[in-house]
Amino acid sequence: MDVKAAVALEAGKPLSIETIQLDGPRAGEVLVEIKATGICHTDAYTLSGADPEGLFPAVLGHEGAGIVVDVGPDVKSLKPGDHVIPLYVPECRNCEYCLSGKTNLCQAIRLTQGKGLMPDGSSRFSLDGQKLFHYMGTSTFANYTVVPEIALAKIREDAPFEKVCYIGCGVTTGIGAVINTAKVEPGSNVIVFGLGGIGLNVIQACRMVGANMIVGVDLNSKKQAIAETFGMTHFVNPKDVDGDLVPYLVELTKGGADYTFECIGNVKVMRQALESCHKGWGESIIIGVAGAGQEISTRPFQLVTGRVWRGTAFGGAKGRTDVPTIVDWYMDGKINIDDLITHVMPLDQINHAFDLMHEGESIRSVVTF
Amino acid sequence: MDVKAAVALEAGKPLSIETIQLDGPRAGEVLVEIKATGICHTDAYTLSGADPEGLFPAVLGHEGAGIVVDVGPDVKSLKPGDHVIPLYVPECRNCEYCLSGKTNLCQAIRLTQGKGLMPDGSSRFSLDGQKLFHYMGTSTFANYTVVPEIALAKIREDAPFEKVCYIGCGVTTGIGAVINTAKVEPGSNVIVFGLGGIGLNVIQACRMVGANMIVGVDLNSKKQAIAETFGMTHFVNPKDVDGDLVPYLVELTKGGADYTFECIGNVKVMRQALESCHKGWGESIIIGVAGAGQEISTRPFQLVTGRVWRGTAFGGAKGRTDVPTIVDWYMDGKINIDDLITHVMPLDQINHAFDLMHEGESIRSVVTF
Repeated sequence: MDVKAAVALEAGKPLSIETIQLDGPRAGEVLVEIKATGICHTDAYTLSGADPEGLFPAVLGHEGAGIVVDVGPDVKSLKPGDHVIPLYVPECRNCEYCLSGKTNLCQAIRLTQGKGLMPDGSSRFSLDGQKLFHYMGTSTFANYTVVPEIALAKIREDAPFEKVCYIGCGVTTGIGAVINTAKVEPGSNVIVFGLGGIGLNVIQACRMVGANMIVGVDLNSKKQAIAETFGMTHFVNPKDVDGDLVPYLVELTKGGADYTFECIGNVKVMRQALESCHKGWGESIIIGVAGAGQEISTRPFQLVTGRVWRGTAFGGAKGRTDVPTIVDWYMDGKINIDDLITHVMPLDQINHAFDLMHEGESIRSVVTF
Repeated sequence: MDVKAAVALEAGKPLSIETIQLDGPRAGEVLVEIKATGICHTDAYTLSGADPEGLFPAVLGHEGAGIVVDVGPDVKSLKPGDHVIPLYVPECRNCEYCLSGKTNLCQAIRLTQGKGLMPDGSSRFSLDGQKLFHYMGTSTFANYTVVPEIALAKIREDAPFEKVCYIGCGVTTGIGAVINTAKVEPGSNVIVFGLGGIGLNVIQACRMVGANMIVGVDLNSKKQAIAETFGMTHFVNPKDVDGDLVPYLVELTKGGADYTFECIGNVKVMRQALESCHKGWGESIIIGVAGAGQEISTRPFQLVTGRVWRGTAFGGAKGRTDVPTIVDWYMDGKINIDDLITHVMPLDQINHAFDLMHEGESIRSVVTF
């Protein structure tokens, strides 16, 4: 079938709006009509060419929501008409990782997904006969896509696509980091480095679980107002701090934070986040994605005296299980997504969404089909 | 009173056997007759002058066992005749750290202990009128010492001093890293880097809690035999591995270890230990003490994909609570200390114990008084 897509033809160039061809779902696969998709820094990272694993030409996009149109053979858990959110971290519920109880990093289709292909090793997308790569197993920058059954979370039908698509990445990453990875307890003091879309979701999750002091750190003081509406209790702009940031934050939090979150992808900030943790028990969670080859460092004394260094991917969430719950939280008013989606536009303006993101003008832009 | 002690008069010089003066216990303090003391790498590190916090002249030693001789005012939990192990990590049971339930790093007397002084800011030791510093709050290289009540674990009276003194540091550090810090589960695969005294205690604790594969890594193949008697199931000498050590260990453990332990103090090995962990959930525990100013590094991707970097001090053990239990385990035959104590000697040969350690000839030397 013909579908309308924003195609990444080559690295470093704007996306190209094209009519491309999509083959129907094979065994274990599902055809989804994408109704809305967010635009995330990870898409921009790959599009820029900086991602060493980036493949071109490809249909990018990994933060979508839509409706099941057709299912291939052997698909049991979904039927046409179901509302779904595609998952770039699938949940097969059968692999060693899913069964470990210790991680969300299902490995069932990792190898083919990393190669931009469906689990059988082929692509469903083509443009004038030329194969296009899938992206993160989701490829939501198209009004129809084919996704493995194990990579779709079934959600309630009254949830608005143009809002809950954001749960496909940013919302779940931020909220999951707090509740699944850090397991922040009521009364905890936390520090959030970077007040973009991820940081704001971390903040509202910390508020939801009853954190005490929620310190936000950002070089842009314009972020303070919205961060406060999401639950931030203290704002620190490092430019306004005399001397080193770490001792300032340790003093502010009366000995260091119980949990810190790096939501930027800056390896120097990752170190500050670790060293701002409380001696004895503070845990630092890396959420941001650093540039290729960059390294984090610290003195081992930081760990020997009780700090813990962790990371998280997709907020440690098992998508098919946890994403529907987060949709419920949104529908119940427990979390705020509306104020994070600052721009909505049609697909043919998608390159403008990237511009807004690079300029820091948007928190999240969403494309509706 | 006059006591016999091995005194560290200055950095880089052998200890000097002296008759020194010891004042009696003040409020909250206890006079202990030391019956045996181990000699640990930490003593050697400080004596060498490499420890930036080292103070001289001082009475070193932190791995002792003895009998209470006298108690100062306000001491309630101990009386003359009690058998005790001095604790360089005290347990006041009242500070924020003790009450957190998350750490063993009691801070009640940290400031004065770090300055080589008793909690009231003075020293009980002197030599010909010159003040000597205490060391790690214990100073067990003397046949009598004064220790705060909160830094003494009361142990059973049938336990042999020349064996259980080792529980004052090395045994508890290794065993505690496994059971308190890593919380190794039955069936886990573990890798232990460095098969000295700490590493062997890590190994026997992993065996005790039912680990599956217990891999030992050491550049000295002579360590293999004793490590196997402590429970090691696989030995790897990095010199015998073609190519990089990390992928070799990941393959050997079928995807990486559930837990790894760095028992050397080498920051390069600390990185190998982290990166040998299983994707998704592997945790690496730093036990070894690195040289001043040295740093650990890795790519944040290692953490984002689920590995966790931790450290431990005194094995995460709360000394007054946990040390008596470990003494019981020794007396019940659950752990082996006898084969780790390779040399026993009188105080006036203590410098020979340091030589044996530096030459790799001993696992543990113990001085008996």
